[in-house]
Amino acid sequence: MLRIAVIGAGRIGKIHAANVARHPRTWLSAVAVPIEGAARALAQAHQCEWTAQADDLIAGKDVDAIVICTPTNTHVDLIERAAAAGKAILCEKPIDLDIAKVERCLASLARTPVPLLVGFNRRFDPSAAALKRAIDDGQIGALRQVLITSRDPAPPPLASIPSTGGLFRDMTIHDFDMGRWLLGEEPVEVWATASCLVDPQIAVLGDVDTAMVVMRSAGGRQCHINNCRQAAYGYDQRLEAFGSSGMVANDNLRPTTLRRSGAACTEARDPLLPFFLERYAESYVRELDAFVAAVLDEKPVAVSAEDGRRALVLADAALEAVKSGRAVRV
Amino acid sequence: MLRIAVIGAGRIGKIHAANVARHPRTWLSAVAVPIEGAARALAQAHQCEWTAQADDLIAGKDVDAIVICTPTNTHVDLIERAAAAGKAILCEKPIDLDIAKVERCLASLARTPVPLLVGFNRRFDPSAAALKRAIDDGQIGALRQVLITSRDPAPPPLASIPSTGGLFRDMTIHDFDMGRWLLGEEPVEVWATASCLVDPQIAVLGDVDTAMVVMRSAGGRQCHINNCRQAAYGYDQRLEAFGSSGMVANDNLRPTTLRRSGAACTEARDPLLPFFLERYAESYVRELDAFVAAVLDEKPVAVSAEDGRRALVLADAALEAVKSGRAVRV
Amino acid sequence: MLRIAVIGAGRIGKIHAANVARHPRTWLSAVAVPIEGAARALAQAHQCEWTAQADDLIAGKDVDAIVICTPTNTHVDLIERAAAAGKAILCEKPIDLDIAKVERCLASLARTPVPLLVGFNRRFDPSAAALKRAIDDGQIGALRQVLITSRDPAPPPLASIPSTGGLFRDMTIHDFDMGRWLLGEEPVEVWATASCLVDPQIAVLGDVDTAMVVMRSAGGRQCHINNCRQAAYGYDQRLEAFGSSGMVANDNLRPTTLRRSGAACTEARDPLLPFFLERYAESYVRELDAFVAAVLDEKPVAVSAEDGRRALVLADAALEAVKSGRAVRV
Amino acid sequence: MLRIAVIGAGRIGKIHAANVARHPRTWLSAVAVPIEGAARALAQAHQCEWTAQADDLIAGKDVDAIVICTPTNTHVDLIERAAAAGKAILCEKPIDLDIAKVERCLASLARTPVPLLVGFNRRFDPSAAALKRAIDDGQIGALRQVLITSRDPAPPPLASIPSTGGLFRDMTIHDFDMGRWLLGEEPVEVWATASCLVDPQIAVLGDVDTAMVVMRSAGGRQCHINNCRQAAYGYDQRLEAFGSSGMVANDNLRPTTLRRSGAACTEARDPLLPFFLERYAESYVRELDAFVAAVLDEKPVAVSAEDGRRALVLADAALEAVKSGRAVRV
Repeated sequence: MLRIAVIGAGRIGKIHAANVARHPRTWLSAVAVPIEGAARALAQAHQCEWTAQADDLIAGKDVDAIVICTPTNTHVDLIERAAAAGKAILCEKPIDLDIAKVERCLASLARTPVPLLVGFNRRFDPSAAALKRAIDDGQIGALRQVLITSRDPAPPPLASIPSTGGLFRDMTIHDFDMGRWLLGEEPVEVWATASCLVDPQIAVLGDVDTAMVVMRSAGGRQCHINNCRQAAYGYDQRLEAFGSSGMVANDNLRPTTLRRSGAACTEARDPLLPFFLERYAESYVRELDAFVAAVLDEKPVAVSAEDGRRALVLADAALEAVKSGRAVRV
Repeated sequence: MLRIAVIGAGRIGKIHAANVARHPRTWLSAVAVPIEGAARALAQAHQCEWTAQADDLIAGKDVDAIVICTPTNTHVDLIERAAAAGKAILCEKPIDLDIAKVERCLASLARTPVPLLVGFNRRFDPSAAALKRAIDDGQIGALRQVLITSRDPAPPPLASIPSTGGLFRDMTIHDFDMGRWLLGEEPVEVWATASCLVDPQIAVLGDVDTAMVVMRSAGGRQCHINNCRQAAYGYDQRLEAFGSSGMVANDNLRPTTLRRSGAACTEARDPLLPFFLERYAESYVRELDAFVAAVLDEKPVAVSAEDGRRALVLADAALEAVKSGRAVRV
Repeated sequence: MLRIAVIGAGRIGKIHAANVARHPRTWLSAVAVPIEGAARALAQAHQCEWTAQADDLIAGKDVDAIVICTPTNTHVDLIERAAAAGKAILCEKPIDLDIAKVERCLASLARTPVPLLVGFNRRFDPSAAALKRAIDDGQIGALRQVLITSRDPAPPPLASIPSTGGLFRDMTIHDFDMGRWLLGEEPVEVWATASCLVDPQIAVLGDVDTAMVVMRSAGGRQCHINNCRQAAYGYDQRLEAFGSSGMVANDNLRPTTLRRSGAACTEARDPLLPFFLERYAESYVRELDAFVAAVLDEKPVAVSAEDGRRALVLADAALEAVKSGRAVRV
Repeated sequence: MLRIAVIGAGRIGKIHAANVARHPRTWLSAVAVPIEGAARALAQAHQCEWTAQADDLIAGKDVDAIVICTPTNTHVDLIERAAAAGKAILCEKPIDLDIAKVERCLASLARTPVPLLVGFNRRFDPSAAALKRAIDDGQIGALRQVLITSRDPAPPPLASIPSTGGLFRDMTIHDFDMGRWLLGEEPVEVWATASCLVDPQIAVLGDVDTAMVVMRSAGGRQCHINNCRQAAYGYDQRLEAFGSSGMVANDNLRPTTLRRSGAACTEARDPLLPFFLERYAESYVRELDAFVAAVLDEKPVAVSAEDGRRALVLADAALEAVKSGRAVRV
């Protein structure tokens, strides 16, 4: 059994705590949440210990691993302390919004190596994983193009915009990771364009809400990403990979298979699953599987700190491309 | 070139006249329509002769073949006279509503054999033909079950109900033919149930509007048919064939491939093509191809008078099954 | 918390035990399994007590409810004893294969009333439930026809055929329940035809493997069921409901949304989920929710013993219809 | 009746000749084809005059309009002469590969104005037209993003590559036109990346075969195009438009609606229609309708010479973007 402590009790912290509590190979030792009410509630739900101090858990003898679900700006500090204490780490994305800080963190990790999995949960989605497997199995021959559609149902609260690091570092970062992973070759060039078409207040805050990105690998493979902070029809998450002998694609998930036909239209389907907690519920479970396998079975870490760094490099490059109008080499 | 005269200028007569006028191997010699205005209009549209008297065309020396699109109760007489005159015949379904009359007609045809194709146009639909080919090519192994969904967009005018011969002889007759054709074995047993759920006036006129039929072949293959005189979402025409190694199925055709996603629903498609003229436009063209091939190239007739007779036998059996509550052997 | 004991540790017993162990409102008190090894393994997996004697649990003071997952011929006895002990009961379908025995059981239950839910799990499938809700909400207007396709991936072991009660009582019974539920009116007439097209050994054992059923309600609504013991492409579970203002339909579930396009074909999807344990995993969870709500919240029982009886009546009627060639009134 | 002469008898010339011969409002006066055998064959097929000299037709008194289907480098000359002769013109795309020559042609046309329709046939595809109508009708609210997937089944013969003007001017030019049309705002910025992933011989000839383009309008709307000269699964032509209140998308057309399910996969559909002649057969007919309406009914020309010029400007910009690594303003 892997004894795990979860730090943070936001939306994702709760998901991780529940998954850890239920996983056949893990034990939820404790949760660390600064607000006592929230901490007590979560601890009670899963019948585990709680503390307001993350340090207690990081130092704890009955804790083998830490799941970090706190605000982004606390990740690096927690990673470094947990690594120093020899704990395995599952850290929510991104490692940090500042590439210099991320690089210092990676350097630090090199001195106190522990298994660290960065929470790019979408890699663990059964459909995304099947698409990746189809590529790797040669089902579409030599890969040529990847298309990623990723649109949120609604923008985050305006108040949170400044701390997100902007669209590319906050939202597209998932797609940068997905693009790298599916391309199977490192992107060497990034280009992007971005607009504010959803809410002008987002522009006032210095951010954008609608973007297109193109990346190219050294081998000439191409990856397109389109993003928007708001889609009226729900959380739109689609992938397509095209190669010399075929194409594989994923459509969205829906809560049921119901199709409705009437005088106005036919084959109408329900709205998509609301947002990432519902859409990627299974991914979080499988991400935990992968983390457990990395620690207990010494399997390679599925998404490394270096993967986390590279996604941020691509996000920074996209931002620079928007500013300069040039494709940015990475 | 096959010189063809078309008798009748209703909806289907116009379709046949236009197809004959346009077909590379046929020449539209003339149209026979009792109402002068309609006759002139049709003749002008296709720059051919016209007459009010079908007999003129049947006797005509410059006519090789006759297309019969007149009211059902005139079919047998026209067939017999055309056959006596040695003309090839394409006759709209059904041959007649009275099985005894149909059998006399077939006996008469045996004495003056000419190519005669009965207009079960759906056999020529590209999707239906592909499904039949898939069965015959063994793509689904040994056939077990056939499912036919066939629903009209709206019932015929009440005034026409008495002359239709009732739902089974008028509407289901297409599905009886399709079922026989797809089963690949003759049905030996027919069972049916029928209700009046669309318009109680149809019941007043002694007919039904909603029905389910099951047929069984000697080899134990099964065929289900469902019918309704009214479907709010349009003309619903679907087929499914299930066998030992797989299944093939046809969905409906739509005017475009457009799918709409919004807050209320996703992937909504347009209503179906309105009715048989639009849905089976291509089938009528291919039916004419088959007729031309039968006459000019001496290919076997794709849908014979015997096929016409057998579909009516099944319709009569269904009617008897509804009355008796028993499966009727045929 | 509802303290539940599970009797039986076959495929479905294991599912129920796991769901009970995990449900936030239930406690898995114990499992009763005659084979010690199986009992120990299951008890260990969920850290609960075990016994070889169902009676121990039925008498147990720390048990509020019993889940019966034993062979069919033991159901009635266990139901009667559990009811006498005042335990709530979740019993796997069917109650029994003998209608007389079922009726005696219902009479007995009337004297010792306890909440009893019969495990027609498909009613709890999210897609089936959404389809039922769409009908009840009037989304398709007045219901006219229901179509149920239900094909198993592979026949049961030949050795088990004699104890199944035959296709209609074993397999179609789910569809009879689904048909009754969706029709919203009691069937008054059942007709069926059946063949042995999958394996002639099944005929040798006196059973059939391929069937079509049609039921009619007093109001003239119609329901078609098609069944087969073997489908090469997997466990095929589809529903369609057609009414005066539209149609709703459910397609099959698949493990991913992946679609593959290559030289041979396009849009190819993965095989279906293997069988009922995978396809209806969510249904078993929701069935338990409904059972808990019935006992703890005194909600009406979602699927009553009477529902269990009526499904068996329809199955018996279908069998009689096959033998007599007549529609059987029920 | 509009009396039309067709110049050129390649694949598209034959399509246009056949459509003109069949259209209710046009008369095929003659075809001009330099090779006598081809000319005779085409003239015989449609029972019209033929000549080897385009000039004869341009000067002909019984010719109201000219359809130009000759090699690209002859278009401008033929346009100018036909315009000077006062003939209406339907000219296959592109007007020319050299923007300077195109601009001189437009200047010349300004002096001898005649209706001129440039053959961007895809605008007339029923599905593309429905998608455009959905945008214009406000069905998706304020437009934000357009996605165009356009992949050919196989590259053109290597020998023809040098005269195509390269991927952007030959193939993407259709998508540049489609993008402009759907965006509803002029692109102000073009970026592109291109590789040679299909056939290295194409690179040897100085061209590319796989590309991604992004365009941005002044209002910040974004358009992505992906192209490849070869797709194993056929001619892939898809569109998606995303706006503030929804999304509309077009899938590919197939010859039938057949879906196949077996042990290996389910819902497999046939390969796509082979190439543009089949895929856009209906578009060529509707393009002719639009041309006839422009000339006979003085309706606005659906695709103007200016549209032809702007598509070429975008193609040139994409080429420059690939060379410079910069987004090019247009």
